[in-house]
Amino acid sequence: MKLFSSVNDVTDIKQLVASALALKANPYAHSDLGKNKTLGLVFMNPSLRTRLSTQKAALNLGMNVMVMNMDKEGWALETQDGVIMNGTTVEHIREAAAVMGEYCDVLGLRSFPKLQNREEDYNEEFFNKFVKFCGVPVVSLESATRHPLQSLADLVTIHETWETYRIDAKAKPKVVLAWAPHIKPLPQAVPNSFAEWMSRAQAEGMLDFTIAQPEGFELNENFTSGAKISHDLDEAIADADYVYVKNWSSYKEYGKLLDFPEGWMMDNEKLKLTSNAKVMHCLPVRRDLELASEILDGPNSLVIHEAGNRLWSAQAVLKAMLEEIK
Amino acid sequence: MKLFSSVNDVTDIKQLVASALALKANPYAHSDLGKNKTLGLVFMNPSLRTRLSTQKAALNLGMNVMVMNMDKEGWALETQDGVIMNGTTVEHIREAAAVMGEYCDVLGLRSFPKLQNREEDYNEEFFNKFVKFCGVPVVSLESATRHPLQSLADLVTIHETWETYRIDAKAKPKVVLAWAPHIKPLPQAVPNSFAEWMSRAQAEGMLDFTIAQPEGFELNENFTSGAKISHDLDEAIADADYVYVKNWSSYKEYGKLLDFPEGWMMDNEKLKLTSNAKVMHCLPVRRDLELASEILDGPNSLVIHEAGNRLWSAQAVLKAMLEEIK
Amino acid sequence: MKLFSSVNDVTDIKQLVASALALKANPYAHSDLGKNKTLGLVFMNPSLRTRLSTQKAALNLGMNVMVMNMDKEGWALETQDGVIMNGTTVEHIREAAAVMGEYCDVLGLRSFPKLQNREEDYNEEFFNKFVKFCGVPVVSLESATRHPLQSLADLVTIHETWETYRIDAKAKPKVVLAWAPHIKPLPQAVPNSFAEWMSRAQAEGMLDFTIAQPEGFELNENFTSGAKISHDLDEAIADADYVYVKNWSSYKEYGKLLDFPEGWMMDNEKLKLTSNAKVMHCLPVRRDLELASEILDGPNSLVIHEAGNRLWSAQAVLKAMLEEIK
Repeated sequence: MKLFSSVNDVTDIKQLVASALALKANPYAHSDLGKNKTLGLVFMNPSLRTRLSTQKAALNLGMNVMVMNMDKEGWALETQDGVIMNGTTVEHIREAAAVMGEYCDVLGLRSFPKLQNREEDYNEEFFNKFVKFCGVPVVSLESATRHPLQSLADLVTIHETWETYRIDAKAKPKVVLAWAPHIKPLPQAVPNSFAEWMSRAQAEGMLDFTIAQPEGFELNENFTSGAKISHDLDEAIADADYVYVKNWSSYKEYGKLLDFPEGWMMDNEKLKLTSNAKVMHCLPVRRDLELASEILDGPNSLVIHEAGNRLWSAQAVLKAMLEEIK
Repeated sequence: MKLFSSVNDVTDIKQLVASALALKANPYAHSDLGKNKTLGLVFMNPSLRTRLSTQKAALNLGMNVMVMNMDKEGWALETQDGVIMNGTTVEHIREAAAVMGEYCDVLGLRSFPKLQNREEDYNEEFFNKFVKFCGVPVVSLESATRHPLQSLADLVTIHETWETYRIDAKAKPKVVLAWAPHIKPLPQAVPNSFAEWMSRAQAEGMLDFTIAQPEGFELNENFTSGAKISHDLDEAIADADYVYVKNWSSYKEYGKLLDFPEGWMMDNEKLKLTSNAKVMHCLPVRRDLELASEILDGPNSLVIHEAGNRLWSAQAVLKAMLEEIK
Repeated sequence: MKLFSSVNDVTDIKQLVASALALKANPYAHSDLGKNKTLGLVFMNPSLRTRLSTQKAALNLGMNVMVMNMDKEGWALETQDGVIMNGTTVEHIREAAAVMGEYCDVLGLRSFPKLQNREEDYNEEFFNKFVKFCGVPVVSLESATRHPLQSLADLVTIHETWETYRIDAKAKPKVVLAWAPHIKPLPQAVPNSFAEWMSRAQAEGMLDFTIAQPEGFELNENFTSGAKISHDLDEAIADADYVYVKNWSSYKEYGKLLDFPEGWMMDNEKLKLTSNAKVMHCLPVRRDLELASEILDGPNSLVIHEAGNRLWSAQAVLKAMLEEIK
């Protein structure tokens, strides 16, 4: 694997999930694979889970890790071509990316959207230029429109736990992505990515996938093909085995904080409508705004388990990259 | 050891001091103990000595280290339970701590007091919740009310040097914690911690312990039991072998910057009253405000030696933790 | 080598260049040399290339690395002696440097000039005090007046590529340091350093060296002895084999942003005047202000190659230091 930015970069998602779970069972089985190889983690934005889990994944494979908080420790970057750089940006991404590629064997990049210009964000200008100019394999640590390490960890979590939670002879789990309230306009990266991974998993017969959101919060259709889509949360979560809670802002009314109807926060009352569903969230989560504390602190929450799986997902991806570098 | 937050977490302080000095003599004797173990250092506040010495201690034991400047690189944390998170905090400490515990075998945490609400600070709410929810052993890197790695290094320094500095047949050293002037209200963490460690060492017959401070600057009595307490600096330091200089703000008038009398800064003139005392300070120190330059630059200063011992103290604590994880 | 702050710290520059190129050919040949040795990288200012290349260099030698962003993660430092520290500075460089020396075997320091007081900057007060008080070998990561790791990488790049680019039987390359426009007053560290390294290389018969700058932008003569100096860019770059583009602010009118004449930006038109010169720049570079995009994106640019050589230069310097520590 030379690029991990979306589900489309993965030939066989079942194999990648299996690799993550094999690494979880035996974390240090490949601790020589990364010898003398260096991972550079480049952050344009804050990070907790991604920062630590990806570092740890690389260390488990014997890699060195260098962290670059580009927003604080480096130089303000220009991304536009053809501009005279006589303003506030000090370095062009063409040089910055190429230079980082000189010192690292694999690079990870986090670059959030600005949520001001939809076309610009959805073109993934920053991420794609970084990939183009750095010249080494790149792992997305969340870009403007996707967060694939999160989605892989989510799929790993569902696949790993389904045998334990399966009720009767139900063939495959029903997974629901459920929109949740928030006070700020958030990116669509996590739900986009979750949707495209779950759609692919559905296509491969691993699960059934439904998305529930209020009208006006429809995701870009490129990510949701094959998903059942509902505007009625209660109906959508009926018989659900996994409910993936997440806020996102409107794609249509891009960057705006729209009004939204009541009744979209998952709590124990709503949980009763499901098939004793396990509740997931990518974190960070705002308690009792996005998701009820009673769920987070109760037996149905998978959020910490899911965060733990970020490690094995990152390790599986790095392992696949290292195998091609060798 | 599963928790290192106060002297009360240590069964045998003499043994821990001996372990630190054994590591100083042979730093790499246990360089396999930490193989495939990861230390996460979580900073809510600035740090120089603690940051570097604890990292180096872990590396000497063969551990991996990941540093998380939570105040700059992560998300604003909520600590209160039962609040609807519709304000400025993005993640609850319940989730943040638990997630970090997923990726680390041992965690270190620095969390200064806010000095606004005494009860809140002295409840160590933040530190204790972190310990509770992270699920792995925790080392305090200075909490609201204690700085035990510093105090252990202080005790190591006194114990290590006493044979060299002992005059005649004096059985044990006289150690004085001497309040010093400052322009800001500082936490009581270092003096609290020093007081409880020295009180314990006194109870074990290692030294005699006196505290000197102006009226109004008495520490919380939970930390000072057994200590001689004086409001007269000159009297207190008579015949002292070690003078530990440190400012702290009033516990009674919590968070306030009180007026203080003249004559509380240690200088060469005051040094003459002592038994050629060695002068200690945890650093950072404001020269000629807290402590005279002539002392810091003179032969009686132990401050750099003492800072050096932070490394071996941290290594002894991490070693004790790793031995129980294995 | 115990100090690497200027070309004057190097006995044999040809040998150091050869060492860098030998390491480039065989990066892990000395991967045991740094076992149990720790490099501390102390940044008072932002850094990308220096931060990553020096880390990687140390890792290649088997060292541990600890990074300290002193401007963000530590305490505000005092450098003046004899002041009562009752202002905004929290720790004196005397203590801070000495403490870091306790935990590290080698230290690197970046400390930019303030460009307010020429004498203060050119005295290298901060850098020199750090060296004096830390007590361990120090590598400059760019000080107020020099950037020797950059200049070494520049010399390595010229030496490495000359055989490839040599035209006919020309005995040695003509190297031109060419002033370039900018919108801010920049330090003279890079051009000072480049000038003293190229002057030394010229004295050793490795190349011919010319400096071109508008009147008023003359560098301090201590750095330029032996260099041909011109105020006419076109004339200076005639027959040049390497043009090193860089802005710097006036040494005479220190700290000021002077007006400057037109025609000082290198572009393809100017390139025609040269001997098909390779174009270098230390980066970060402001495109189409300092240097034309058409050059940066064209076949004559060496800037990324040159940045890549920062790694081998740092590794050669660290290797030389480790060999003396052993």
